Amino acid sequence: MIKIQVPATSANLGTGYDCMGMAVNLFSEFTFTSSEKRLEISGCAEEFKNSSNLVYRAFVRGCEYLQVPVPNLKIKIETEVPVSRGLGSSASCIVGGLVASFTWHQKPIDKDIILKLACEMEGHPDNVSPAIFGGLCMSFIQNEQVELIKYPVSSDLHFLAIIPDFKVSTEAARAILPKQLSYADVTYQVSHALLLVDALQTGSLQKLKLALDDRMQEPYRKKLINNYDNIKKLCDKMNCDLYISGSGSTLMGITDDITIQNELINEIKKLLPKWLLKPVSVDPDGFKIEVH
Amino acid sequence: MIKIQVPATSANLGTGYDCMGMAVNLFSEFTFTSSEKRLEISGCAEEFKNSSNLVYRAFVRGCEYLQVPVPNLKIKIETEVPVSRGLGSSASCIVGGLVASFTWHQKPIDKDIILKLACEMEGHPDNVSPAIFGGLCMSFIQNEQVELIKYPVSSDLHFLAIIPDFKVSTEAARAILPKQLSYADVTYQVSHALLLVDALQTGSLQKLKLALDDRMQEPYRKKLINNYDNIKKLCDKMNCDLYISGSGSTLMGITDDITIQNELINEIKKLLPKWLLKPVSVDPDGFKIEVH
Repeated sequence: MIKIQVPATSANLGTGYDCMGMAVNLFSEFTFTSSEKRLEISGCAEEFKNSSNLVYRAFVRGCEYLQVPVPNLKIKIETEVPVSRGLGSSASCIVGGLVASFTWHQKPIDKDIILKLACEMEGHPDNVSPAIFGGLCMSFIQNEQVELIKYPVSSDLHFLAIIPDFKVSTEAARAILPKQLSYADVTYQVSHALLLVDALQTGSLQKLKLALDDRMQEPYRKKLINNYDNIKKLCDKMNCDLYISGSGSTLMGITDDITIQNELINEIKKLLPKWLLKPVSVDPDGFKIEVH
Repeated sequence: MIKIQVPATSANLGTGYDCMGMAVNLFSEFTFTSSEKRLEISGCAEEFKNSSNLVYRAFVRGCEYLQVPVPNLKIKIETEVPVSRGLGSSASCIVGGLVASFTWHQKPIDKDIILKLACEMEGHPDNVSPAIFGGLCMSFIQNEQVELIKYPVSSDLHFLAIIPDFKVSTEAARAILPKQLSYADVTYQVSHALLLVDALQTGSLQKLKLALDDRMQEPYRKKLINNYDNIKKLCDKMNCDLYISGSGSTLMGITDDITIQNELINEIKKLLPKWLLKPVSVDPDGFKIEVH
């Protein structure tokens, strides 16, 4: 029996649009055992209990890469990560399946190879990079190579995943963006993204507020998230920072004071009792493997 | 007698357009002594030997800020930094004059105050930041505050200032740029600027090549610099990196091998004997003060 634990990931991060992502300690666990049937899957919606399942497809891709046969499999999925909420659930599935195939066939795990294969499947590295390496990652693909920088994140910062009871379609979140940015705004984005990395490393809430205030995505995408303005007002009142995780619908609140985080939780609960509120911290290491 | 030594600065740096600058060990020295006349200036062109001189204006600005009288002054300018070649000569003058006024009146030097005053005079912090703090600086102005991050630069990297025998006008260098950038190119610029900071800190020439390859300025501004393509070809052949310093005309070649730098110098000398070639290293500290 093989169990792969993969952290959720929060990408985009304000001015980190399309190149940054951060692993957080909400986990998906994928358990693989041998089966008499070709494939049995439990723990997901009925429509995904077949060979189109992303975890299984990633496992098959790993076997292809390793040039080894695909075994009969029983896959059990247990996850704290809601699907299609901007927390990298598809990246978790891909990384889980790929790492499992290498582990199943007792091949050494080279994280760079896992990253390359995962990027091919996901199309971009924003979520798979932190799911594999942990921490805060900046990554991009050029000349078919993935360039990656991993940064530590200050333990002074407390994150709150504020998860709405609705999805935002990735297509709608893309369609709502302009096509171009002025030169002044590009310089703004570049300089603030550099400040963002610095503020997350040093834990400066004040610099983080400046750094997260982006001009590419949030001014547009916030319109797709009901109650964004209410949450934003609450955060501003309590001196918490806020950004849209992925392309939404999850919002991530940030504070350096656990008491304030608890107050924020209470206020949001009163306002939006159906939303899920999960205090999270940064996962420093990425996926973990258990073999029994 | 007060002597202020200020390093030259190389701003823009490929994908660091309009927010990064680096101090290098080409110095301007400004000597201030008391005079019987209101103002005597030596060491610059005749047209600048009057109260419009930038060093003097900065000294006067410092006195205004300190609310102290402007003394009669003799200013001597000695500089290794050619004017209007993209090496921050005006920033040197501003920082020299400001620091001298504080020193003259025996006021404590607060670098943040010098930075704020210098930015007001220069209009942007790209060059004045490293002239004051040294090293590689990322800085921008927001809400009338200067935000600044200083990064160390690897001592493995050897820089060569390749200084043409002609100027590029800042106006022409601005006019030649487009007004907007596509979203894909913005993400490219942001991610590569993050890689640039990392590559300069770690001294990776290979990552530096990727990181310096920008899509905002060099593809346009290189047309304003005669022989850019010839220098670029030489650098590529010798595995050196290259960027336009400031808005030109100086080009900065980078290698991690001093032998290769010497070969590059020899090749450029053959091709362009009138150009000035100055091997430089990063100045880690910014301006220096001598009082006699």
